[in-house]
Amino acid sequence: MKSYRKELWFNTKQRFELVHITQEVQAAVEESGIQEGLCLVNAMHITASVFINDNESGLHQDYYEWLEKLAPFSIDGYHHNVGEDNGDAHLKRQIMGRDVTIAITAGQLDLGPWEAVFYGEFDGRRNKRVLIKIIGE
Amino acid sequence: MKSYRKELWFNTKQRFELVHITQEVQAAVEESGIQEGLCLVNAMHITASVFINDNESGLHQDYYEWLEKLAPFSIDGYHHNVGEDNGDAHLKRQIMGRDVTIAITAGQLDLGPWEAVFYGEFDGRRNKRVLIKIIGE
Amino acid sequence: MKSYRKELWFNTKQRFELVHITQEVQAAVEESGIQEGLCLVNAMHITASVFINDNESGLHQDYYEWLEKLAPFSIDGYHHNVGEDNGDAHLKRQIMGRDVTIAITAGQLDLGPWEAVFYGEFDGRRNKRVLIKIIGE
Repeated sequence: MKSYRKELWFNTKQRFELVHITQEVQAAVEESGIQEGLCLVNAMHITASVFINDNESGLHQDYYEWLEKLAPFSIDGYHHNVGEDNGDAHLKRQIMGRDVTIAITAGQLDLGPWEAVFYGEFDGRRNKRVLIKIIGE
Repeated sequence: MKSYRKELWFNTKQRFELVHITQEVQAAVEESGIQEGLCLVNAMHITASVFINDNESGLHQDYYEWLEKLAPFSIDGYHHNVGEDNGDAHLKRQIMGRDVTIAITAGQLDLGPWEAVFYGEFDGRRNKRVLIKIIGE
Repeated sequence: MKSYRKELWFNTKQRFELVHITQEVQAAVEESGIQEGLCLVNAMHITASVFINDNESGLHQDYYEWLEKLAPFSIDGYHHNVGEDNGDAHLKRQIMGRDVTIAITAGQLDLGPWEAVFYGEFDGRRNKRVLIKIIGE
């Protein structure tokens, strides 16, 4: 069994930003030399997500508005916000998820036709990381 | 290390449908010959889910009504719906999740007493796939 | 390839309770002797979650209030509640998630600085289990 580890770093300009990372994840799979296995991709921070959905800007605007409705930004609306202002971001991340696991087949990410991997940032403008861990043969 | 790959295909009659697939996933585990490992089951489409919950029809009706409340079907309510009508389905799928990872122990899916695996379709009446990828020994 | 399996048992005093289990999961990694691999941690019950977020009591109160808003406890508000009263808990668990997969690197859980693993109980006061399954080398 082989394993491979890589970090991706982000510092988004906006508080809310969705960053397309499919190519970076596929590059890690190729670097690993692994042909058959599993690829875990997870946010290492708790106000961010890794998720898979469509690479379409209208949908990304829908996510923004929808998450803002379900878990609105609010300075004084959360118990967490004592010396913090990101209570909403901890909630948004639970809806969008922390991690995805992707099959590796014949040395490639085994994704459906419209599946694209995203880093979802809900409290940006600071350095944050994503972890890629691949195991297989 | 061994690996095994299988696709399940669906074409549901309804736009919203929950399909019980535990037996199909268990069959794939047996076909793989893997005794100890991990089994990834994921939707390959971005308006569908794979999730684990109860095989109980009242609960499935609750999921339908609840998801319709949190992310209602709407032709003109989503930025995504330019030439599309499935913006709601991309949101519903984020709540229900894309994939589950299930332990394999002694050649069986290592599930709790009431855990059942479902394909969740939120924009059906077309061909869609689920990927099963198993690694282990 | 090595594999390791362990169950954690819970019987919470409250219906809703979030239990910090990072140390128990790290102990299982050490017991496994696995240096590089993947660690699956999942609720074996369908009204409970395993998730990763902040170990901060204000945030935990926020989760309680937010989940109660999105999927309120109600005796007669769910189709599932015929001889049951936990329809809400099946919904809450979908938002918080069933499982997390954590990388293992150099014999340690490969977590970000604030990542903490939690058992999320939404219908407690009974015996329930979490499964830890580790594979790697």
